[in-house]
Amino acid sequence: MTNSAGYVGTILRVDLSSGAITTEQPGDDFYRAYFGGSGFVAYFLLKEAPPGADPLGPENRLVFASGPITGLAVGGCGRHSVGAKSPLTGGFGDSQSGGYWGSELKFAGFDAIVVHGRAAGPVYLLVQDGKAELRDAGHLWGKATAETQKLLRDEHGDPGLRVAQIGPAGERLVRYACIINDLHDAAGRTGLGAVMGSKNLKAIAVRGRNRLAVAEPKTVSDLGRWLRDNVMSLAKPMYDQGTSRLVTGLNKSGGLPTRNFQTSYFEGAAKISGEAMRNSILVGRHSCYACPVRCKRVVEVKGPTYHVSPDYGGPEYETIAALGSDCGVDDLAAIAKGSELCNAYGMDTISAGATIAFAMECFENGLLTDGDTGGTQLRFGNAAGMVEMVEKIAQRKGLGNLLAEGSARAARKIGQGAERFAMHVKGQEAPMHEPRLKQGLGLGYALSPTGADHCHNLHDIYYTSKGPGLENFKALGITQPLPASDLSPAKVRMLLYNSQWMWTLNSLAYCLFVPLNYGQVTELLRGATGWNASLWEMMKVGDRVRTMARWFNVREGLADSDDVLPDRFFTPPASGPLASTSIDKAKLDAARATYYAMTGWDDKGKPRPEKLAELALDWLA
Amino acid sequence: MTNSAGYVGTILRVDLSSGAITTEQPGDDFYRAYFGGSGFVAYFLLKEAPPGADPLGPENRLVFASGPITGLAVGGCGRHSVGAKSPLTGGFGDSQSGGYWGSELKFAGFDAIVVHGRAAGPVYLLVQDGKAELRDAGHLWGKATAETQKLLRDEHGDPGLRVAQIGPAGERLVRYACIINDLHDAAGRTGLGAVMGSKNLKAIAVRGRNRLAVAEPKTVSDLGRWLRDNVMSLAKPMYDQGTSRLVTGLNKSGGLPTRNFQTSYFEGAAKISGEAMRNSILVGRHSCYACPVRCKRVVEVKGPTYHVSPDYGGPEYETIAALGSDCGVDDLAAIAKGSELCNAYGMDTISAGATIAFAMECFENGLLTDGDTGGTQLRFGNAAGMVEMVEKIAQRKGLGNLLAEGSARAARKIGQGAERFAMHVKGQEAPMHEPRLKQGLGLGYALSPTGADHCHNLHDIYYTSKGPGLENFKALGITQPLPASDLSPAKVRMLLYNSQWMWTLNSLAYCLFVPLNYGQVTELLRGATGWNASLWEMMKVGDRVRTMARWFNVREGLADSDDVLPDRFFTPPASGPLASTSIDKAKLDAARATYYAMTGWDDKGKPRPEKLAELALDWLA
Repeated sequence: MTNSAGYVGTILRVDLSSGAITTEQPGDDFYRAYFGGSGFVAYFLLKEAPPGADPLGPENRLVFASGPITGLAVGGCGRHSVGAKSPLTGGFGDSQSGGYWGSELKFAGFDAIVVHGRAAGPVYLLVQDGKAELRDAGHLWGKATAETQKLLRDEHGDPGLRVAQIGPAGERLVRYACIINDLHDAAGRTGLGAVMGSKNLKAIAVRGRNRLAVAEPKTVSDLGRWLRDNVMSLAKPMYDQGTSRLVTGLNKSGGLPTRNFQTSYFEGAAKISGEAMRNSILVGRHSCYACPVRCKRVVEVKGPTYHVSPDYGGPEYETIAALGSDCGVDDLAAIAKGSELCNAYGMDTISAGATIAFAMECFENGLLTDGDTGGTQLRFGNAAGMVEMVEKIAQRKGLGNLLAEGSARAARKIGQGAERFAMHVKGQEAPMHEPRLKQGLGLGYALSPTGADHCHNLHDIYYTSKGPGLENFKALGITQPLPASDLSPAKVRMLLYNSQWMWTLNSLAYCLFVPLNYGQVTELLRGATGWNASLWEMMKVGDRVRTMARWFNVREGLADSDDVLPDRFFTPPASGPLASTSIDKAKLDAARATYYAMTGWDDKGKPRPEKLAELALDWLA
Repeated sequence: MTNSAGYVGTILRVDLSSGAITTEQPGDDFYRAYFGGSGFVAYFLLKEAPPGADPLGPENRLVFASGPITGLAVGGCGRHSVGAKSPLTGGFGDSQSGGYWGSELKFAGFDAIVVHGRAAGPVYLLVQDGKAELRDAGHLWGKATAETQKLLRDEHGDPGLRVAQIGPAGERLVRYACIINDLHDAAGRTGLGAVMGSKNLKAIAVRGRNRLAVAEPKTVSDLGRWLRDNVMSLAKPMYDQGTSRLVTGLNKSGGLPTRNFQTSYFEGAAKISGEAMRNSILVGRHSCYACPVRCKRVVEVKGPTYHVSPDYGGPEYETIAALGSDCGVDDLAAIAKGSELCNAYGMDTISAGATIAFAMECFENGLLTDGDTGGTQLRFGNAAGMVEMVEKIAQRKGLGNLLAEGSARAARKIGQGAERFAMHVKGQEAPMHEPRLKQGLGLGYALSPTGADHCHNLHDIYYTSKGPGLENFKALGITQPLPASDLSPAKVRMLLYNSQWMWTLNSLAYCLFVPLNYGQVTELLRGATGWNASLWEMMKVGDRVRTMARWFNVREGLADSDDVLPDRFFTPPASGPLASTSIDKAKLDAARATYYAMTGWDDKGKPRPEKLAELALDWLA
């Protein structure tokens, strides 16, 4: 995709209302300013989605974007972002997915797809080798994801067709419906599946045979080889247990969200741990395109209570904790079943699990009754109740119809103070990282433009005196470790820099887990594009995109009063190693003010004109 | 200088009052935070010089500092910084010098020397292979620099002794006296020679035979070889004419300061140009340590009017313009003579020339008379008068005693509105770059913590649509050229980023002229230290040091009201291509406010606490 004019890419634009399909080729400067991925999400939302747009209306944009390194034969280059105005938060919606779909999009000749409008009836988009067309999807509507993928592959006689799609949850506008690709990978958060459903777009099926032109093939292939050669010494735990390995370690530190964050230590952790999974239901490992890490799980359960097919992969750490410990559930088969259902129906496992945990606490406190649940004793630890609720939410049946709105909206409807049980920020449920353990991450939850989010955040425990993360950080000029509970201005800097870097990665569409250091990622970008890229330039792209996401939220009416945490995090967990630790609210407030000022936002958290100018974002003001 | 603990260096501390000489070895983190050079100047001034210290009193610190790359066999690694509280500005004093002295200091086992106190009588410091001692310098006091160097080399029987020293101008506390090393290289600006004189420190003679331990010898030697192999294709004009090549080009653009900046086009430019010098008095080229560029001139004049020895090198562009066009002088031999005298007496050629130009304008306007000058018709174009005044200033004879105070103080004493002829910022005379041509540089003059300065500034003409500088800039994320006259927020960003980079280079003690790009300088630092250095880290060191310099000025009572330009720059030059161009004061004021906000300073230009925290400078507040 590089030639003498620099990086050349093509963006596909699909107007579902009119059926018009066009392409555009922004110049090299555009790619250097925004890269792709979340950068493109931010750009197209700000440029094209009208202020105040209904997230589920035709004027919302739905952006699928790979990055300048996507599709290279280097581990970590198999990702893409999806974004839209979020039906869950009303603000910036953005999520990343792995798998094979993003690289296939590049092979098909496109960097990104911008979707707008609304089709009159169900359609799917077929993208093949530089061409794109809309096709009727009446026969696919209502189908689970595996069925849809099979039908599409059969229809086109192409078992290599890569499909990003919604399941029934997206069709039914569950506010945390996700977009599933390759059956087991998801752009999970912020409700993008509902946006896709609102547009009557069932799927995007992609196939391409383009070879990517790379500026420095040797640089790229050397990095790919280096990673293959070193993956087992650098990332063996990720291969061995994937993200599920976090269960044991976090629980030991008192950082495993349990029973709707009432506590952070789960007595049943050993039953749902990465070791337990590896030693019981694990039957394989998936990778993303060209990645030797193979961190993704494949599980199979053959009864007696649950049957889980390996087609849908297996649960990540987030899923295990959300459907498991956070619901008090220590039944790994039930968790695997819940995970399978979420993938089949197309639903974010984090928000699904967290919303069920919320409902369980309401039930235990009498705010919901068995009248509401149809008889189910929806108490913590009820594995069957958890699985039942996943199903009901996806189908919007019974109590599921209320919970499909997410915990924040459901709490408002339930009333009676139910809001104190809704563990969300800006309407998005907190992921499975305990902010009382990782307090910089707690600040990150409050500040994240997508609501509580762990994907552009600081995982403090890696940067303590015992953590492994500091060596790479030195390239950012940060040489001193800090306690995980620290909320000093120095921690704010750590969060700020790391969050910028995460936004950079999400705009490159590069993986957070693959063990390339900053210098190697810089080399990768240079090799791919021929740019004289530097870590400065890359960090400034992260800064730019982070600021654009903030600006979008300000534009949509979110304010500093939305940069807050649930009160629960200001009191200690009920048990476990963290039982005397909570976030000091005054310190959090001070840290938030420091963050605003440090990054060039005003006292209310609005990016100052000078900050916009520094980032060449004058066009926003 | 690297081992398993990272970068290990030794700093020499000399208390002239007590005669105590000690050493200290700050750890790797310290070097990563401040690098060396100007970073060390800023650090030791802020840590140790008491607020309100008399620049010419014993409590002032005088810091000589090389950097982590100094002494490597790569062109550009032969530099060092000198700094102190400036007797010219009352604020941050800092200047860089090339030559061989800085690398010799490294070979002698030291990164830096921090001098304080005041010796009872003239002394010199002898530094040899890890040892240092103070010696009597009574026999050297009053001597010109060449004599002093010869006496010291003879005394120690070592023709390889490298000497940094003051001449009679420094002894007499001329406020813009400089520190000369290797006879023709100077830490020229901000009056550091007067600080050295006030301490009765005549010279620092250095000799070392240490080999530098480097983390990655091959990385370093490859860069050295690459530079040698490519120097003639990348830097031939610098070899051919040195900085003097600027005379012709700048004059053509209307950017050659002429007759005290009354105009910016000099009708006599061809007579004093780089070409003229090359074709007449040039007899050789000097380099700094290990540098293949060889940009320094060696000239010789054998009458009839002037005799100039090649011992003192030859005039740089700044000298040619300051003693030449700015004084209306088109006599190259006279300029060479003035240059030689400045090197022999140890005096900054820029401030010397600019102060004489100021006096000439006062004379032409009747504010000074031949009674003041002892009969000399001190008019523009009077070459002999210029040479005479250089001599008189250095000796503080007659009018020279007044002009030795610098143009700003002299103007206040002369009264009668003479201040309108003093082309200074914060007391330091503007160097020979026309701010009405390069308006970003004009803003840089106003903002520079050292007063008008071209060494951490933006030379706008390189970044216009016709300029050659943009390719490297892209690594900073700046892809669009801007007109030289632009003062928009985008230009402020350009100045801000480039100034940060210049502060980085001055803290590395790396040369601004050697054609390594950002990536190569990053490699050089990595190779030298073993750090996983990045352009981000390096730019943040520049940011840190720039902010420290600003903080020092705030501490010493300088305010936003000092961030101003002489009124002359708000009206067009009297003639030439720029005759209809001036700086719009309202735009300059707006750009200054933008700069404050963009870099995290408050409305008055004081760095905000959050900015200090971001740079790990909390210890300042």
